[in-house]
Amino acid sequence: MDDFDLFFLALDYVGVAVFAVSGGLVAARKRMDLVGFAVLGCAAGIGGGTLRDLVLGVRPVFWVFEPAYILICVAASCATFFWASHIASRMKALLWADAIGLGVFTVIGCEKAMALGAPPVIAVVTGIMTASFGGLIRDIMAREVPLIFRREIYATAALSGALVYVLLHEYHLPKPSIVGSAFLTTFLVRALAITRGLALPVFKPHNQPKAEDTPPQP
Amino acid sequence: MDDFDLFFLALDYVGVAVFAVSGGLVAARKRMDLVGFAVLGCAAGIGGGTLRDLVLGVRPVFWVFEPAYILICVAASCATFFWASHIASRMKALLWADAIGLGVFTVIGCEKAMALGAPPVIAVVTGIMTASFGGLIRDIMAREVPLIFRREIYATAALSGALVYVLLHEYHLPKPSIVGSAFLTTFLVRALAITRGLALPVFKPHNQPKAEDTPPQP
Amino acid sequence: MDDFDLFFLALDYVGVAVFAVSGGLVAARKRMDLVGFAVLGCAAGIGGGTLRDLVLGVRPVFWVFEPAYILICVAASCATFFWASHIASRMKALLWADAIGLGVFTVIGCEKAMALGAPPVIAVVTGIMTASFGGLIRDIMAREVPLIFRREIYATAALSGALVYVLLHEYHLPKPSIVGSAFLTTFLVRALAITRGLALPVFKPHNQPKAEDTPPQP
Repeated sequence: MDDFDLFFLALDYVGVAVFAVSGGLVAARKRMDLVGFAVLGCAAGIGGGTLRDLVLGVRPVFWVFEPAYILICVAASCATFFWASHIASRMKALLWADAIGLGVFTVIGCEKAMALGAPPVIAVVTGIMTASFGGLIRDIMAREVPLIFRREIYATAALSGALVYVLLHEYHLPKPSIVGSAFLTTFLVRALAITRGLALPVFKPHNQPKAEDTPPQP
Repeated sequence: MDDFDLFFLALDYVGVAVFAVSGGLVAARKRMDLVGFAVLGCAAGIGGGTLRDLVLGVRPVFWVFEPAYILICVAASCATFFWASHIASRMKALLWADAIGLGVFTVIGCEKAMALGAPPVIAVVTGIMTASFGGLIRDIMAREVPLIFRREIYATAALSGALVYVLLHEYHLPKPSIVGSAFLTTFLVRALAITRGLALPVFKPHNQPKAEDTPPQP
Repeated sequence: MDDFDLFFLALDYVGVAVFAVSGGLVAARKRMDLVGFAVLGCAAGIGGGTLRDLVLGVRPVFWVFEPAYILICVAASCATFFWASHIASRMKALLWADAIGLGVFTVIGCEKAMALGAPPVIAVVTGIMTASFGGLIRDIMAREVPLIFRREIYATAALSGALVYVLLHEYHLPKPSIVGSAFLTTFLVRALAITRGLALPVFKPHNQPKAEDTPPQP
């Protein structure tokens, strides 16, 4: 394992920890106990990668023989139980750390599919899946409106990074530059979403409004 | 691949596309953006088959080396983004196309289990799973009451088709007649549900009503 | 298979049946039809073990070649359809049967991970997962607040039993005593929760309350 791989592994752990904290913050909003924090922390931290490994047929899933991932999730989400108020006041910092996690997870998702010889379009899917399904599972468990269905760009950042990954991979560039470019693209698109509130247009029904489209009567 | 298989593959693609449109229609009701349409479209289109392959141990799952499935889901759900109002006004046609998908997915679910040598009761389970869990995942993601728990017959149509499949399979009939009969049974039972509002009786508590059973006071 | 294994298999079936009844009771509260009862019964009865086998890479999952599990789930949840009122009035008995299921499932979850050579921390995770994720999936499908996020101790009982399991396993005790101790620990902790309303402290924000923490204005 060379320096680049080591650096990337460190970023991976940072991403998992930050996602686990996001699980803890949802648990805090719902006034859960420590076990609830740990469950939502693990769901957010390793849920996306677990689904990716399952559909790709990697077995067992990545964290079974690398308990560090589970331990990081439990530690990070339990820390949130005790320091949630402090963490919440640093929400801005957390958003940026989450953007790093988003970039790392997108790249890992693409890499794993490519390593198995899956077609590029599948690598894009597993990239998005790794990056955004942990949060989706967290939100479904906690009965929140899933983040990826809210207005601000999130999964789209993973999509753009994954597209860069498969494109540069087609041109046989050296791995560090593929990984670096895909990571930076994801991170920058997400950064634009955070700083400028970038969002895609939502669906608007354009002709004949139907009963279910009218607002409920007071 | 002979003519029958080719015809059946075409029906499979139609089923996936129609299920993906159903995902798009839910996304439209929730005013999502294009990414939300694609995510719900994929969940509805390939979610059931993905769960089936996972429990049967088929790896990787069917769409990983056949990207056509993902592309059909994305295309169909994104088309819904632009034409949802037109599609909604053709809801009747969509219901019938969905009934075709239901029949095809039930048959494929039974077939895959039988091919692995699983017992008939498991083939029935994977038949129902393939046909109805895509819609279940779609509804859970979008926080809707899952369609299979609503009154009209849906999973029951898949159940009856799956029963026909395993029964005829026991008698070693030729494959096209097993497939055809199971498909038609599912389709016809669902057709009765659509045209006559056929429904199973729901649970009614018969003695001592408890607090939670009384209607909320105005 | 000796007497101990046979006795434990019987307990396993009891656990699956009781969990399936819990699925039926949720379906009864939601006024579902027989298919809804069967779906929620299967989700509750075999959902946790299914997820465990998936992440551990056991394929196919345990019930595919042992249809007894599915049949028990369907029978128990359909019986609930007809006798839910009687069962509900025996809620106390059901709670105790559920505690038995919790203990058995925790032990099986630990055992399966250990048999694959997974590290102890992973055995704890799969123990908790087997014991509590069936109920989680049941509650998510039925749009209820998941039981494991409610106040009373539940997953924590599985956690303590799983810790006992991996601890005694380190000391190479004979299997029946490991299994027995882990089962009894889970059962007793859960019993304390049932009889004394034992609960972990929940998260309380301690400084600067924020807008989202204030109760909604009337």
